[in-house]
Amino acid sequence: MTFREKLLMAQGLNRSWLCVGLDPVIDRLPEVVRSSDNPLLTFASAIVGSTADLACAYKPNLGFWLAEGVVGVEALHQLIDEVPDHLPVILDGKFNDVGHTAEAYARAAFDALGVDAVTANPYLGCDAIRPFLDTPEYGVFLLARTSNRSAPDIQDLMVRGHPLYQEVARLATDWDEELPGTCGLVVGATYPDELSVLRETSPSLPFLIPGIGAQGGDLAKAVAHGPTADGIGPVINSSRGIIYASSGPDFERAARTAALELRDRINREREIA
Amino acid sequence: MTFREKLLMAQGLNRSWLCVGLDPVIDRLPEVVRSSDNPLLTFASAIVGSTADLACAYKPNLGFWLAEGVVGVEALHQLIDEVPDHLPVILDGKFNDVGHTAEAYARAAFDALGVDAVTANPYLGCDAIRPFLDTPEYGVFLLARTSNRSAPDIQDLMVRGHPLYQEVARLATDWDEELPGTCGLVVGATYPDELSVLRETSPSLPFLIPGIGAQGGDLAKAVAHGPTADGIGPVINSSRGIIYASSGPDFERAARTAALELRDRINREREIA
Repeated sequence: MTFREKLLMAQGLNRSWLCVGLDPVIDRLPEVVRSSDNPLLTFASAIVGSTADLACAYKPNLGFWLAEGVVGVEALHQLIDEVPDHLPVILDGKFNDVGHTAEAYARAAFDALGVDAVTANPYLGCDAIRPFLDTPEYGVFLLARTSNRSAPDIQDLMVRGHPLYQEVARLATDWDEELPGTCGLVVGATYPDELSVLRETSPSLPFLIPGIGAQGGDLAKAVAHGPTADGIGPVINSSRGIIYASSGPDFERAARTAALELRDRINREREIA
Repeated sequence: MTFREKLLMAQGLNRSWLCVGLDPVIDRLPEVVRSSDNPLLTFASAIVGSTADLACAYKPNLGFWLAEGVVGVEALHQLIDEVPDHLPVILDGKFNDVGHTAEAYARAAFDALGVDAVTANPYLGCDAIRPFLDTPEYGVFLLARTSNRSAPDIQDLMVRGHPLYQEVARLATDWDEELPGTCGLVVGATYPDELSVLRETSPSLPFLIPGIGAQGGDLAKAVAHGPTADGIGPVINSSRGIIYASSGPDFERAARTAALELRDRINREREIA
């Protein structure tokens, strides 16, 4: 099965375009979790357990797991094993390195950790992305428009009469035609106009859309312009809004309620759109 | 002591601008190492042990250690502890993430792993770099011109009348003025003309120069245009040319010979320059 097929199947099964971001920070974990042997794993496992019928994917960001050193990386490995097989895991590593190092990252992600897709940064050009594009079983979401405030610093610089992020999308479309069915784009919901432009210029590339929830992105636009021409829904990510819905002992139930509420809001927008 | 002071001191002590890249790939390790309990650590420790009087810094690339999963990350932690305190360690992670995730990476690098500097990618703009710039005790080398063949795909796109990589250097200079003494640039020796342009436009930013050795970069240009206006030498990196100088049981001695030879070639070029 290709990554796109797996994603589409998960979206259908759970009637969901919601991706849960697994970004645990030790100081923010509920008291009841912090006293466990392995707080990061205990916490993230509980979140997965309480949302697995509501999400179309999970997205652990490598940074939060690396911040806890060896214990964190070990916990990430175990967590990925615990995600039900039919739900894709997208490792948000924003990888970017020269050819043979990119191959090492591809091994780290797809072989050692066993995820289904990664995020990657376009600044080094095609040969830094290619090791992730080789197999349609795996996906790669290339950063086009990120959700952060200073995204325009570089991404809005004008090249060839349009902003750089559009040129990145054009390159991604080229690369995807060469190795079909592997490439997608990261497009922040905090930049709704850019999102709609990118859907026009790249109709076939799946979108991973961060910036919903704590970052205040535009859900209606994310839903309206999210799907590809052939019906693959966007992967709409929320991290803090779900995983920190409560800092009390009811955190699992609160995460489930927040995930359910967001999934259903997305689905209502789909009916309108 | 600031990162720049530590680097300058190490360069003086070992009369060296050579940085040894610690990028072990398990299949390429000498037979004698592969049968040890912890091949990556055994190998890299031996390389550090045999070159610590010849190098001005070590640069482990995170990708090669992550590729071995938990064992690899554990080995990286131990290895960093083994590098003599007076020699800076630069973690080549090419980090790039939104603000609070960038903070997690900064914790991972400076607190959990205990390195002195990191590499970072400029595509997300200033707020993704800021957590690494906060403390002059630590350094960050921002990717301007990478050493790989497809670097021009994005980095040579013309913005405001000059290529993007020059605009990145201009931004880095601005950021460095705001938080002085923390920012440097990554500039591949495989692009000697770009290297000399960047030295002109960014006279005060230290250079980390990959691409010497296996990648075939121009050592004379790296030396001539490498130092800052106030005399901080470039960090000229070689990985494969040193660590894989021999695949036999004499690999330590061969690595030492290769490191000595390259350090001395650099020093001869310094006399000419």
